[in-house]
Amino acid sequence: MDDREYFERLESTAETPDELFEHFSRRSIDGRTYYVLSDARHGVERGTVVVEAADAVVRGYPSIPRVLVLDSGVAAFFDDDQTVVAEEKLNGFNVRIADVGEPLAFTKGGHVCPYTTSRVRDLLDLSSFFADYPKMMLCAELIGPETPYTTHDYEGIDSNAVRVFGIRNRATGEPLPVESRRDLCDEYGFPQPRLFGWYSQGAVVEGVREAISELDDAGREGVVMKSADGTEMVKYTTESHHHDELVYAFSLPFDRGRDFFFSRVIREAFQAVEFDEDDERLRDRAHDLGESVLLPAVETIREVQAGKTAGERHTVRGDSESIDALLDHLRNHSLTVEIESDRREDGERIVEFVKVAESTMGRTQYYLDGGTYNE
Amino acid sequence: MDDREYFERLESTAETPDELFEHFSRRSIDGRTYYVLSDARHGVERGTVVVEAADAVVRGYPSIPRVLVLDSGVAAFFDDDQTVVAEEKLNGFNVRIADVGEPLAFTKGGHVCPYTTSRVRDLLDLSSFFADYPKMMLCAELIGPETPYTTHDYEGIDSNAVRVFGIRNRATGEPLPVESRRDLCDEYGFPQPRLFGWYSQGAVVEGVREAISELDDAGREGVVMKSADGTEMVKYTTESHHHDELVYAFSLPFDRGRDFFFSRVIREAFQAVEFDEDDERLRDRAHDLGESVLLPAVETIREVQAGKTAGERHTVRGDSESIDALLDHLRNHSLTVEIESDRREDGERIVEFVKVAESTMGRTQYYLDGGTYNE
Repeated sequence: MDDREYFERLESTAETPDELFEHFSRRSIDGRTYYVLSDARHGVERGTVVVEAADAVVRGYPSIPRVLVLDSGVAAFFDDDQTVVAEEKLNGFNVRIADVGEPLAFTKGGHVCPYTTSRVRDLLDLSSFFADYPKMMLCAELIGPETPYTTHDYEGIDSNAVRVFGIRNRATGEPLPVESRRDLCDEYGFPQPRLFGWYSQGAVVEGVREAISELDDAGREGVVMKSADGTEMVKYTTESHHHDELVYAFSLPFDRGRDFFFSRVIREAFQAVEFDEDDERLRDRAHDLGESVLLPAVETIREVQAGKTAGERHTVRGDSESIDALLDHLRNHSLTVEIESDRREDGERIVEFVKVAESTMGRTQYYLDGGTYNE
Repeated sequence: MDDREYFERLESTAETPDELFEHFSRRSIDGRTYYVLSDARHGVERGTVVVEAADAVVRGYPSIPRVLVLDSGVAAFFDDDQTVVAEEKLNGFNVRIADVGEPLAFTKGGHVCPYTTSRVRDLLDLSSFFADYPKMMLCAELIGPETPYTTHDYEGIDSNAVRVFGIRNRATGEPLPVESRRDLCDEYGFPQPRLFGWYSQGAVVEGVREAISELDDAGREGVVMKSADGTEMVKYTTESHHHDELVYAFSLPFDRGRDFFFSRVIREAFQAVEFDEDDERLRDRAHDLGESVLLPAVETIREVQAGKTAGERHTVRGDSESIDALLDHLRNHSLTVEIESDRREDGERIVEFVKVAESTMGRTQYYLDGGTYNE
């Protein structure tokens, strides 16, 4: 690629093109060549992609910081006179959709996901949007029980659905203001995350606490608070989400990161200090946390003991070709995929598969066989 | 030091003296020079010390592996026809005591601990033992509420006490058989850990399960199983100990290692699969685990919020000089030590101090002030 030109367009903090581009890796899919930045570097977001054939830069979505204490966090993060909007944060699979010759769904890491691409093409009217706004990208979450990455259930979603939570200039990453984005999504019929409200600084905490309480009762993830212009964002999540994530982590203990656990406990502890008025409430939270850690781990050990495969189970549906492409895509990412069922229903192919958790199966069997742990 | 000679005496797997000795660091205390190996290398144990002036090698104590599943673990670890002895594993501070000109207590990492040295000289009749066995070392645990490292309470121990759990040739690390060691300790009046019994292979698991159940009820740590000749050792610990360690870790969450947590949960999960017959028992364990994690973390956040110092509180007693030496020793290890009280009682100096948990205080205050967490 023409390094000098893309270097200038990326507006990084690197001093030379080499300093930046040595971190990009070259990938080729369907004869198209991409240059992908797998980790944030020199002020350029993780997952930023250069598609030379389309003369396109697709910026990564910025990482959203989190407050651990809502009250002081909101006060410290937003200016006193800022209007803050709170929208639901969904537990799904985060992609950017850009038209680089054709509309593609790019993952956080900058890969093209064939399954998500196929789903968003079905679920959103992309051609009319990109005809009008060719240089924009849609930032969206694929949610529901039938995705190859997450399995969180949402009421009323049997298979999968998309929520567009941002529209940005794909080359600069600059977001539309929240109101414009919501209007534009309405215009094109794109479903969006729930809006809880627009708040003055002094009213944010109360509004978000109410939202969090409601979301917690419904077993949903949390809230993203944004400045009205969409440039500043901070997140806050529910107790039930923290516990769900612990269940997720400890159902495959040797495969999930250890940091995964620690940060969830820290979130819980600060939330308990801020929210839990009495000892009984705190004790309930502790018990639930303990169950979220221990019970899935015990269940998995018992499964391995019984000779079953430990791993993440997913169901996907769609046209046969995009499902084959998905399975190839997963295997190309060094995942061991076991197909549990593969059938057709109403003209669609439905595949249930397991991403085999190799470390968990191996370590668990080793300890069950009497293997020792050396400290 | 004369590298070639010590190299041969250490019988490592390194090919040249340099390959081994580059990992030793030089330390000087009271005009004496030590060479210390801080991590296990080339088959030489962590904490191995060379004291040139005394022409002495003091081998590190070997790391004891752990079984996660008692039944299959014992079967895999010991030979079928081996006699296995089970002794109590104590929760204290592990040292080796060797006479290198004078009797000194070496920590696991190979440091000389002035406080432990002073305590073991008071509590054990070292001069007559080392007069008879100058080339042996005593492997011992300093236990009780008044130690500068651990604070586990043992019934009947108000201040501190020592338990000798091994006697080894200090140069080779070769242990005395368990029976000889127990006899020799009796002869010199050295207190030892409790002996649960000698078992044939088929009877070990039942014996150890009974011991573990009793120790668990008493809030004690666990058991070390040894071959009769003392060379093979494996450990197994109680539920109450795992939970105590989680309390310990999460009372200062940002200072304790994250791996600390993970390994304790894993121990719990395998123990639950092996021991917990019914769901109610499993749920109780999970609740207790959750409380052990969340409650100490919440308590510490509240303390920092109230302006208190977070850290490990210890009480030590002894002659004034060895306490000064201890405080110097801790500060030399980059610890921030705050003295909370310093008084005399019955001719002894008693100091209460806090090892300040800098990371926990700093991170906690930062989040309480509304700081964000970037993922």
